Amino acid sequence: VPHGTRNPIGWGFVEEAATDKERRRLARALQAFLGIELSDERRPPPPEAVALPAPRIAAPPHLSGLVHAGHTDRLLRATGRSYANLAHIRSGRLEHAPDLVATPTSEDELERVLEWAHKSGVAAIPFGGGSSVVGGVDPLVPDGFAGVMTLDLQGICEVHEVSTVDRTVTAGAGILGPDLDRALAPHGLTMRHYPQSYLHSTLGGWVATRSAGHYATHLVKIEDRVEAMRVLLPDGRRIDTLRVPASSVGPDPNRLWAGSEGALGIITQVTARAVPTPKHRQVSSVHFARFDRGLEAMRDIVQAGLQPSHLRLLDPYEQAVSAAMSGGRVHAGSTLILGFEAAELDVAPAMAAALRIASAHGGSTEAAAPESSAASWRSTFFRTPYLRDAMLDWAVVAETFETAVPWSRAAGAYASIRDATLEAVLAVCGTGGVLARTTHAYPDGISLYFTYYGRGRHGALAEQAGEIKAAASAAVVAAGGTISHHHAMGRDHKRWAAKDVPAPYQEAIRAAKRSLDPSGILNPGLWWCPG
Amino acid sequence: VPHGTRNPIGWGFVEEAATDKERRRLARALQAFLGIELSDERRPPPPEAVALPAPRIAAPPHLSGLVHAGHTDRLLRATGRSYANLAHIRSGRLEHAPDLVATPTSEDELERVLEWAHKSGVAAIPFGGGSSVVGGVDPLVPDGFAGVMTLDLQGICEVHEVSTVDRTVTAGAGILGPDLDRALAPHGLTMRHYPQSYLHSTLGGWVATRSAGHYATHLVKIEDRVEAMRVLLPDGRRIDTLRVPASSVGPDPNRLWAGSEGALGIITQVTARAVPTPKHRQVSSVHFARFDRGLEAMRDIVQAGLQPSHLRLLDPYEQAVSAAMSGGRVHAGSTLILGFEAAELDVAPAMAAALRIASAHGGSTEAAAPESSAASWRSTFFRTPYLRDAMLDWAVVAETFETAVPWSRAAGAYASIRDATLEAVLAVCGTGGVLARTTHAYPDGISLYFTYYGRGRHGALAEQAGEIKAAASAAVVAAGGTISHHHAMGRDHKRWAAKDVPAPYQEAIRAAKRSLDPSGILNPGLWWCPG
Repeated sequence: VPHGTRNPIGWGFVEEAATDKERRRLARALQAFLGIELSDERRPPPPEAVALPAPRIAAPPHLSGLVHAGHTDRLLRATGRSYANLAHIRSGRLEHAPDLVATPTSEDELERVLEWAHKSGVAAIPFGGGSSVVGGVDPLVPDGFAGVMTLDLQGICEVHEVSTVDRTVTAGAGILGPDLDRALAPHGLTMRHYPQSYLHSTLGGWVATRSAGHYATHLVKIEDRVEAMRVLLPDGRRIDTLRVPASSVGPDPNRLWAGSEGALGIITQVTARAVPTPKHRQVSSVHFARFDRGLEAMRDIVQAGLQPSHLRLLDPYEQAVSAAMSGGRVHAGSTLILGFEAAELDVAPAMAAALRIASAHGGSTEAAAPESSAASWRSTFFRTPYLRDAMLDWAVVAETFETAVPWSRAAGAYASIRDATLEAVLAVCGTGGVLARTTHAYPDGISLYFTYYGRGRHGALAEQAGEIKAAASAAVVAAGGTISHHHAMGRDHKRWAAKDVPAPYQEAIRAAKRSLDPSGILNPGLWWCPG
Repeated sequence: VPHGTRNPIGWGFVEEAATDKERRRLARALQAFLGIELSDERRPPPPEAVALPAPRIAAPPHLSGLVHAGHTDRLLRATGRSYANLAHIRSGRLEHAPDLVATPTSEDELERVLEWAHKSGVAAIPFGGGSSVVGGVDPLVPDGFAGVMTLDLQGICEVHEVSTVDRTVTAGAGILGPDLDRALAPHGLTMRHYPQSYLHSTLGGWVATRSAGHYATHLVKIEDRVEAMRVLLPDGRRIDTLRVPASSVGPDPNRLWAGSEGALGIITQVTARAVPTPKHRQVSSVHFARFDRGLEAMRDIVQAGLQPSHLRLLDPYEQAVSAAMSGGRVHAGSTLILGFEAAELDVAPAMAAALRIASAHGGSTEAAAPESSAASWRSTFFRTPYLRDAMLDWAVVAETFETAVPWSRAAGAYASIRDATLEAVLAVCGTGGVLARTTHAYPDGISLYFTYYGRGRHGALAEQAGEIKAAASAAVVAAGGTISHHHAMGRDHKRWAAKDVPAPYQEAIRAAKRSLDPSGILNPGLWWCPG
């Protein structure tokens, strides 16, 4: 079932591009809250006008039909979907593109393609939905390769088994989020894993990047949902990890490939833990005069053992812009979106307990939000990335980034990262602002998610975004945060990852890579690739 | 605070050895339910009479006071505490013992000791509480080492920080379970991690072996409780993983050392996630005519999203022996011990929901058990290993082993593993029996825990146990189970671990080991050690 036409020069599907109404609301919000006046709108070049470097290699005859070199084939996989990626596309000329694109529809076909790459010294970049915002699929590889081939895995998407007894699904790693849920739905199950890229990302991509969904607590990270997987190595070896709920035999193999971003083997199949489709839902909004009081309430809620599905604290700036864009009411202060969902158990007692805690921290609760508001938020959440295309039209520099820190550093990290980012936005752009919200909460800490907007200059957008990213990333590291809570490392975070991945660990994983990928062809250019 | 005198020839503390009353009850149960008549009681030799091989190396003068070679020092660390280990000790002669024992009380002292081992080609075996039942600390190393030094880490046990905000504790890896909880108690916190070795095992040992506590669901495995750790490498490099609640930067470093059994570096410090001390408790017993109906009830309970602290199904044999030993009533059929605990939230609704599910599967509930029964079971749980010493006196062959399987294989695995083990017990011993219970439950599967008893022969006990273990382990593998759910791999499970750790993964971890431990001195002899 095709979901839409993949947009080779923007986010998602061509048919789903931002509407005029969405663009007008965004423009009003940017003007009202961030002082960004919009003018000089420039639409992107048509896809066929984006120049790509000439392919350096050709596919051998025995791979005919499996490997392609057409302009659209290559353009569609030439970058991920970071702001800088899209700005580069709009320049009308990409410095890097895969020489070839493979579209295997089975593990055997993938093996044939990989075998050739392995023997020919061709770098191979696994590509799921291509929604990486961290340079994870950008064909930037060190010197020494004959060329670069991107492996589009969406054809390896068969659903092999749904076990209603184990509540697991075994599927090809290239299956897209909605297709996976479509296979589960008749059994009353769902993956209930909704990253913002849900419509455009794959099960294997989630695992390879240690993705998190939009639910705030409990089963947040995809690596906790992996029962087993199959990995294909370039020299033809296959690895099937054991289908068991837990084990203590050595370091967990599943955890070596979770987060490996295709550099340690190609994840071709995953057995994932599904959950029953939620039937009971309650959602509330709680207002706090101060962001840090909201954080304290959140902490007490999760540390009490409650596991809300929604627990998202918007800072005053995020609250204002978000309300303006959705046509809602703008409040002073911070808003906590609090929700519970369950398949079988009543959620009312948990909601009541959470609201008591919030109230004890000075939160004031409006009338309970309608049950539909969670679904409505999710759909807004999926729409947001389309607005980046509008911002690129307007020369607005805008990016999101996130981190996670222990609770003891949460308020400090929020303030210092926000301040540093705002300072950089103002230095680079003159005008702009920074918004923040929490996305995920754990008993020992929290994920903080920032969005900034600044008035940029056509032709310099990627550089401007890069300058701001450098300042923001340095602030994240200084605050003791991870450089990525749920977007992986990619190529873009290498400079700031020394604390996340200490040097001796990096060396050990590189040694493991040499064993798994002797020719070093798998997604070279990531930190665990030598060179 | 000393907890007791470590028993060099049996389990635990000398002062806590099985009482005459416990021995009488056990003897009655073995006779009544398993037909094992007890005679020919033989007490173990005194510790000073156990012959050890002469040390092959001496400590250099600069390590004086840190490294010891006395008989008791070496005997105490000459084996773990598997049945075979204890049987070997009772033979009065150990073929293998560490040549030296180091007792560092700081990371700096450990570094000095390790540096010497690294330069001198001396194998170094990290040793926490020494309670391994899988040969994890047995000084059996491949040829080529100058000698073997066991590193007793119990001196590295300082509590560096208790964060009541993050609910974490940072402590030296050598801290024993009770000491860790003693540090947490004034803050209203506990690790709430009670392996059967709790009194005799260390935080670092738990992490290195991917231990599980005695609670049945939710935060079962210690690796889910690790926020960060420090690892010391033989060449002096130190690794501190980042203190964050979650991340997506590369494969998770904490998961490389969780389960590494000291072969990839010495875990010297752990920041672990504590929990608030439970205040609310309810416990019930539910009887099922059939074990498999009990399994179905358990599955529905966990898949409904309930997270009972106790969810332990005893098969009819386990139920009978366990009741006989505790002086309780013997029922026909299987018994499900069901309990909920919470620090702040009411547990009654969850208990009611679980009992409704159990009842729908034909379970009949007795009057709720007194709240103290969970604590009483825990204390019985801690007493059980002392009874092995009595069984060795009586020439009863007795061992426990466990696995985990998906729900869809649970009933089949229970039957086939039980049958194969019983067949082996009868073939080897003539008389005996097999007991089983579940220990841990997950949404996608379960851990099954078996105990067997057989009439053995003094002088042949280790061999008899080994023969039965081989048959039982083969049945575990044939049933698709992991060869160890919570006791790690050690040396004893290597033969049966090919499905748990597929060959290319083994090679990759060996490559990582060569990078982390260039001289290969760390706990050689495990699967991830070459040779």
